[in-house]
Amino acid sequence: MFERLDRAREGADGGFGPVDRAQLALLLEVAGTPKPGNVDRSRDLAELRFEHFLAGAVGVRAGLDRAAAGEPIGTSFERAVAGMTRFAGRNTQFGSLLLLVPLVSAARGGLDRSSVERAVSETTVDDAAAFYRAFEHVSVAVDEPPADAAALDARRGADAIPAVRDRGLDLRSVLELGVPGDDVAREWVTGFERSYDAARRLSVADGPLQDRVASVFLELLAERPDTLVSIRHGESVAAEVRKRARDLVERGAFERDRDAVETFATELVERGINPGTTADLTAAGLFIRLEGGPVDR
Amino acid sequence: MFERLDRAREGADGGFGPVDRAQLALLLEVAGTPKPGNVDRSRDLAELRFEHFLAGAVGVRAGLDRAAAGEPIGTSFERAVAGMTRFAGRNTQFGSLLLLVPLVSAARGGLDRSSVERAVSETTVDDAAAFYRAFEHVSVAVDEPPADAAALDARRGADAIPAVRDRGLDLRSVLELGVPGDDVAREWVTGFERSYDAARRLSVADGPLQDRVASVFLELLAERPDTLVSIRHGESVAAEVRKRARDLVERGAFERDRDAVETFATELVERGINPGTTADLTAAGLFIRLEGGPVDR
Repeated sequence: MFERLDRAREGADGGFGPVDRAQLALLLEVAGTPKPGNVDRSRDLAELRFEHFLAGAVGVRAGLDRAAAGEPIGTSFERAVAGMTRFAGRNTQFGSLLLLVPLVSAARGGLDRSSVERAVSETTVDDAAAFYRAFEHVSVAVDEPPADAAALDARRGADAIPAVRDRGLDLRSVLELGVPGDDVAREWVTGFERSYDAARRLSVADGPLQDRVASVFLELLAERPDTLVSIRHGESVAAEVRKRARDLVERGAFERDRDAVETFATELVERGINPGTTADLTAAGLFIRLEGGPVDR
Repeated sequence: MFERLDRAREGADGGFGPVDRAQLALLLEVAGTPKPGNVDRSRDLAELRFEHFLAGAVGVRAGLDRAAAGEPIGTSFERAVAGMTRFAGRNTQFGSLLLLVPLVSAARGGLDRSSVERAVSETTVDDAAAFYRAFEHVSVAVDEPPADAAALDARRGADAIPAVRDRGLDLRSVLELGVPGDDVAREWVTGFERSYDAARRLSVADGPLQDRVASVFLELLAERPDTLVSIRHGESVAAEVRKRARDLVERGAFERDRDAVETFATELVERGINPGTTADLTAAGLFIRLEGGPVDR
């Protein structure tokens, strides 16, 4: 399924393109279950339900179309965020889009890591300005900026643009300021290291795709503290969540004791702990995996 | 959510169109749970899983784009079916598309029932030919044709086209031959009566959209025997399923005894009884509902 046609037919009648696969990646990510703390096929959060993610995945499409057509990453991202917010009525996939938009843009030239690194290194000050405008569309949890970068606080939205222009910061440089503290931004400076790793894990994992997504999510959660959890609940909670996930991974709970993973998933939802960064990385990994060829199982 | 913008902005930058809402209708339909016998947010069938429906809803998009652009209903439908089949690797939403494609086409002029009736009455012999070609892309369960219409058996695929042309049958006339016996075809000759009724019920029903979808599905299932169940399992099984659904609806089980609906849903899945026609009508109702304005809850 998710058949890969010849590159030559892509975009032509009958073919699928990166936008289709990015949209499917968003849908498969949210369907993967159990994903501790996150909306999944079996769990809703109070103000963020499964149906909102479905709507978000439809609403992003016009922005992704722009990226696929070679328009700048910044305005494509802003458009995707605006469409998501308007159609879903809330923020469902902001972080995933910050990974998917450059990946979709890079996929025009074949999605190897060097093409993605090139795409982000070629971003401009205008891309950075569009990124800040995207925050005008939606409420996003972000970390406090460093003391010397208060003028660049993303929460200022478009008000930060003069400071961005003044310092001549391109979008990659802006995101570099967010590292450490934001593992989505970190992908932009590591050549999408964990996204590619997630794609590799998705290929190796077994079972229906929905299970593989959840299994890879848990592995990523075990690997590094989720930065959205750190921002919202502090580093000790993020460290605790990571340790719990690592214990489950180390004893092969996903295969041998699924109930333990389900219990952990429900507990995090009840505590309002939402490892959204890990979900974003999973979505990016899914896209890379789907770009790589058909999924057989 | 699913904000409706001004018609004037539809399709323009920032706006959503009928294709977005049709895609969302397909996604919300499959997410609705419990939907007895069908794939839903909580249930998979052996060869037809939730993730296949997600992929199908992405794959149909190019065909729906054609319908929205005013291209003929027949070729738009054929393209949507081909995309669905190729991306999902199987038949997930054939019947839903046979309702959504004329609805999307009619939505260009405002989606009242007279515009839909006009759209189907204006179909041609070429539309009918494309409809038969669509069967070449996918395996679909259809009823035996009447004795005098064996040449028009949809299972013959493109081989039936000479007989279609010979008799000068447009697509509406071809589908009229399927009534009774196919309640999707029946919509084409009743002005989409039950689809509009489903839309009205979706407006009246309460709770998250996922619940409303399932509740309306059950009401539709209680109303008439599901024709896909009739074709696959015979009329007595279809009548039994309808009676069981009616009993649940009459005692308000969806609100007061949800467990009974869940049990019925799982039982039908285990027996391999899949009321797919009722799901198709629900998807069409969802689209009409979404076209009518924002969904608030």
